[in-house]
Amino acid sequence: MTIIVDGKKIADEIENKIKKEILRTKIVPSLASVLVGNDKPSKRYAKLIQRASARVGIHFEIYKFPENISEKELIDSISSLNKKDSVDGILLHVPLPEDIDERKIFSSINPEKDIEGVHPLNRGKMYMGIEDPVPCVAEAVIRVLSRYNVEICGKDAVVIGHSNTIGKPISALLLNRNATVTVCHEYTKDLRKYTEKADIIVSATGVKDLIREDMVREGAIVIDVGRDIDFKNVSKKVSLITPPFGGIGPVTVSILMEHTYKLAKKKVI
Amino acid sequence: MTIIVDGKKIADEIENKIKKEILRTKIVPSLASVLVGNDKPSKRYAKLIQRASARVGIHFEIYKFPENISEKELIDSISSLNKKDSVDGILLHVPLPEDIDERKIFSSINPEKDIEGVHPLNRGKMYMGIEDPVPCVAEAVIRVLSRYNVEICGKDAVVIGHSNTIGKPISALLLNRNATVTVCHEYTKDLRKYTEKADIIVSATGVKDLIREDMVREGAIVIDVGRDIDFKNVSKKVSLITPPFGGIGPVTVSILMEHTYKLAKKKVI
Repeated sequence: MTIIVDGKKIADEIENKIKKEILRTKIVPSLASVLVGNDKPSKRYAKLIQRASARVGIHFEIYKFPENISEKELIDSISSLNKKDSVDGILLHVPLPEDIDERKIFSSINPEKDIEGVHPLNRGKMYMGIEDPVPCVAEAVIRVLSRYNVEICGKDAVVIGHSNTIGKPISALLLNRNATVTVCHEYTKDLRKYTEKADIIVSATGVKDLIREDMVREGAIVIDVGRDIDFKNVSKKVSLITPPFGGIGPVTVSILMEHTYKLAKKKVI
Repeated sequence: MTIIVDGKKIADEIENKIKKEILRTKIVPSLASVLVGNDKPSKRYAKLIQRASARVGIHFEIYKFPENISEKELIDSISSLNKKDSVDGILLHVPLPEDIDERKIFSSINPEKDIEGVHPLNRGKMYMGIEDPVPCVAEAVIRVLSRYNVEICGKDAVVIGHSNTIGKPISALLLNRNATVTVCHEYTKDLRKYTEKADIIVSATGVKDLIREDMVREGAIVIDVGRDIDFKNVSKKVSLITPPFGGIGPVTVSILMEHTYKLAKKKVI
């Protein structure tokens, strides 16, 4: 019997908790979503966040900038959000246009309004084991594993993808929990060698059907972050799997709500 | 034919370059070594640094504090070094006494005087691929590999040890260079499973003879950071190995000299 993770259900639980907290404390958190250019997945993600914000009672505002904005202009715009008392959390949608160094922009976000844990200060703390805040998608992976009582300590975990915003943070959180962590990526020779013996596989590449049935062992735990898994066939073999839709996605959005609420609450106390 | 890494020679090359630079630019860098309590390896390390400083022309000062110093007192002392114009680089010796959270003390070092890259801001940048500065021992590993033209990209690299100051930074630098990196540690089940197929093994645990001949493959590259390797037997089988003495150690110290000089130079410009 394979467990198919119900991401929607986990997200509902998280959202309902936040919603209640907001009603109880009368804190109205405010989230600023910064969108540069016309990246369609980013626009879709912003829409999902807007809807979730409406559900739980978070004030959502989107700040749109043209594709040709300069690094300096973008940093100035973020500085003004940093100063704005009414903004609790800032989310910068990536990828940014190619001529902008996203790491510079990450550094310009006030670390205390950094709901995604992208500022190098928060990133450094995460790698040292202080997880406050961390990227929502990485936290979503851990939350799903713990929701289904998957033990992480001592397990052979393989993360596929080593992007700064997804693969690396996921591997950091697994390592913080004492998994033996292997990070694979586009330069990895013979990916199967790593996946076929793994207890836990987290794939975050965006390459469709990268992980096939013959690459995973019977009973493995498989988390699909990038819609990389041949779900139909892999799901027959493993013990737990997230579906490509309604898996990690909704949990990530709900954790973004949680992070925004936490920052708003911190400011009040 | 196994290559035995001559760490002393590499260190001499690095030191001579710094020495010449110091003579040429007339910049006299200044290094403050912060030593808390009576940890013997730390004392020995401070001594080695003092001698290297004398060789290259760096002004070295040691600041000793008693075992029972409070976190607050230590942070105050570091703050005063942060403010002192005559100090270019600050080195905090670890381990600290058990009741002090080293991460708090790391955070108290001015990131611009952080020669070991321990401040979370520098740590976060390193994980995002901006390596300036990074922990000297991790840089020493990379420097040794590149000195002997060992290709890293696409290689199967196994790092043993996941401490914040040694194992994790080494794995970050290998990952930045696109190795497929596995981090093993005390919770790893069946260490041999990972080491026996590795192209590059970096061991940093301090457990004597942890890595034995039967655990490495013919022709592997083996870097001994923690004096973990059964050198006598492993060296017969591999293609390159660092000896337990005169290996990574001297290179690490010379890179500390380099980092101190770089920070002093940055301040002048």
